[in-house]
Amino acid sequence: MNKVDPSYQPLTTDMLAIRLGKIDALTTLLGTDTSTWTSKEVGDGNLNLVFIVQSDQGSVIVKQALPYVRLVGDSWPLPLRRSYFEYHALIRQDKRAPDTVPEVYYFDETQAIIVMEYFNSHVILRQSMMAGKTHSGLAETLGLYCARTLFRGSDLSMNTANRKADMALFANSVELCDITETLVFSDPYFNAERNHHTPQLDALVATLRSDVDLKVEAHHLKAKFCNNAETMLHGDLHTGSVMVSDTETKVIDPEFALYGPMGFDIGMLLANFWMAYFAQPGHAEAPGARVAYQEWILGVVDEIWTIFSTEFSRLWREERTGILYEKTLFEDQGHALASEQALSHRLNDIWQDTLGFAGVEIIRRTLSLAHIAENETIENDELRADCEARGLKLGRALVVNRTRMNSMASVHDLARVIAVEAKE
Amino acid sequence: MNKVDPSYQPLTTDMLAIRLGKIDALTTLLGTDTSTWTSKEVGDGNLNLVFIVQSDQGSVIVKQALPYVRLVGDSWPLPLRRSYFEYHALIRQDKRAPDTVPEVYYFDETQAIIVMEYFNSHVILRQSMMAGKTHSGLAETLGLYCARTLFRGSDLSMNTANRKADMALFANSVELCDITETLVFSDPYFNAERNHHTPQLDALVATLRSDVDLKVEAHHLKAKFCNNAETMLHGDLHTGSVMVSDTETKVIDPEFALYGPMGFDIGMLLANFWMAYFAQPGHAEAPGARVAYQEWILGVVDEIWTIFSTEFSRLWREERTGILYEKTLFEDQGHALASEQALSHRLNDIWQDTLGFAGVEIIRRTLSLAHIAENETIENDELRADCEARGLKLGRALVVNRTRMNSMASVHDLARVIAVEAKE
Repeated sequence: MNKVDPSYQPLTTDMLAIRLGKIDALTTLLGTDTSTWTSKEVGDGNLNLVFIVQSDQGSVIVKQALPYVRLVGDSWPLPLRRSYFEYHALIRQDKRAPDTVPEVYYFDETQAIIVMEYFNSHVILRQSMMAGKTHSGLAETLGLYCARTLFRGSDLSMNTANRKADMALFANSVELCDITETLVFSDPYFNAERNHHTPQLDALVATLRSDVDLKVEAHHLKAKFCNNAETMLHGDLHTGSVMVSDTETKVIDPEFALYGPMGFDIGMLLANFWMAYFAQPGHAEAPGARVAYQEWILGVVDEIWTIFSTEFSRLWREERTGILYEKTLFEDQGHALASEQALSHRLNDIWQDTLGFAGVEIIRRTLSLAHIAENETIENDELRADCEARGLKLGRALVVNRTRMNSMASVHDLARVIAVEAKE
Repeated sequence: MNKVDPSYQPLTTDMLAIRLGKIDALTTLLGTDTSTWTSKEVGDGNLNLVFIVQSDQGSVIVKQALPYVRLVGDSWPLPLRRSYFEYHALIRQDKRAPDTVPEVYYFDETQAIIVMEYFNSHVILRQSMMAGKTHSGLAETLGLYCARTLFRGSDLSMNTANRKADMALFANSVELCDITETLVFSDPYFNAERNHHTPQLDALVATLRSDVDLKVEAHHLKAKFCNNAETMLHGDLHTGSVMVSDTETKVIDPEFALYGPMGFDIGMLLANFWMAYFAQPGHAEAPGARVAYQEWILGVVDEIWTIFSTEFSRLWREERTGILYEKTLFEDQGHALASEQALSHRLNDIWQDTLGFAGVEIIRRTLSLAHIAENETIENDELRADCEARGLKLGRALVVNRTRMNSMASVHDLARVIAVEAKE
């Protein structure tokens, strides 16, 4: 099932127009005269080839999976099928949250190629936040995206036969799931081979790895991730999977899509904002120069959660067409308040999951294989360790105390205390 | 996918030896001289044809699915594929809990026929409990069966790629799942078409259907049933799916198998014991004649839970080979106590789920389509209503208070109070 088809060939800039020049989906956008096409390989990610292909008529992104992890090389094989899962996730996300993900123009399963919309005036949000830039509409788009994709991919909304078939489809994504199961939930909690961390964190890392409550709770969250197939997740929704322009926000790269708990996507997203918050002193033009920006970040997080829960509630009231909490049993029986009671319980569950998964994400991004650019680009080890340590303290608190933190205000009060406290 | 193959034909006693007489699996057991075979149709269930086939050399059960619900007729079609799911469940259960389920000798997917072991000295437990008979070893076998099948079908034990493939396989069982989703979790809570109940319960039924907390909690349990794919469940583990002799206990009929939460199987099983407990006055030879038997039933329930949790704990400590709570991260790091802490949390979750699903089962067996023989055979309406009402009161308490009932002793204290209180 994971064998590479003999006809599979990685694309090159030289051969791209020759290989794709007869495909209607491309010629419609770029014109049939392939001599006017230019292509540039821009894949800065860890896994794939990514080309921007342009002509005077238009532009597209051509993304092709490689049969191994690009970051590591062919010693770490990774199936081309991830392209299949990304394709299936993208077309579902586009229906569920229109105008937030790239439109797919063409998919070749054997070559693991997706041709999709190019966002030519957008940059990766993570880069933009390192530069201290603000973006209007960011929280609104992300909050709506989360509410709509998570609600509409679940048994709250879908025909359940279709949801079961989708769950079965994404259950085949064993290798990508394994990366999350291992790197996110297990490696950080012991001295795993692929781990690395800033040496100045040694003492704190030892403390965290001997923290029994943290480990047990992180593993309860892993069990929830592995077993609680609530909805189709993006699966890798960090600020490197978000593109922004002055006016638009887009979500990309859902190759880790799977069925899992709603709080996983939101938690990973918020965690990356919180890490960016703690990393700001590492990027400040002068001491204190990023204090206002840090507050902007917390404001975005606050708004994402508010927009998410407002939109989720609207969808609950207006689009609850699935087999769960059926309107025939609630509103139609004069029990609209029971439906509100159930909604409130479910939002509370999602909230607690969100905090827990956020904490897990912060910890793994500091102790496991894949770190974040905000921290990696801080050259001074002491300063980087200081930013990372503050993140870890919030992360630990979120995982262990997630059922006892009842509002974003209380989370952000804690974040501010951690941000200003003296180094220990 | 649900189309009946044109070659499919229901078996008849006349044709059975002709159609199956050349199959090695049968001739090995019954001999090749089919003139010595006798067959008898004994399907008293709601869905299938069941034949006992015997010769002087041996005996087998031949079970064939019909393309509709036998109880209702061809107005309620039901796919033959359920035979495929039953077959796949049986061979897995046999590996995970040896000697507790019928051995499968032969499976024909197109004809939806399973040939399996015949338990010739066994009766259905439900019938036996109506007659007031006790069985030694019953609790032990059922407790071990639950612990072993539930643990060994989960990510605590299995290779996760195999578990994901199994989850996807059983996710195809849409129609059988729909029966549970609808009849167990939804129909009881409103005036659904297929419902029926003893008329003397009208007032109590109205109270339950206007009970907002009950409805909301029952639907949280439904959400857990639909989404939390922890392990392969039997899916219909009531006392009609258990066969007993003087010395043996066997579990049969897993055609409703699916991936779901561990507490569902145990909860359904215990619920059927508790209903049998409340139904005893309807079968007593004289007033009070079944009081000691009622206590025997509670003792069996108590022992099932004790055996289950003891064996589950043993498996946790000795066979935890899956991706959850990996030994490399716990015991191998000198954190055996953390593993015990996690085990205790998980057993507590299973306990609460067990109580909740038990409550839901009692309610649906009294208000929805399929009732239990213990109650249906009580001819006096008043007496039947009285037995059923007591069950409903326990069921309601279990669903709503499941997170606050910490021991079997507290559940059984409540059951005894309900059993002796005057009719309201």
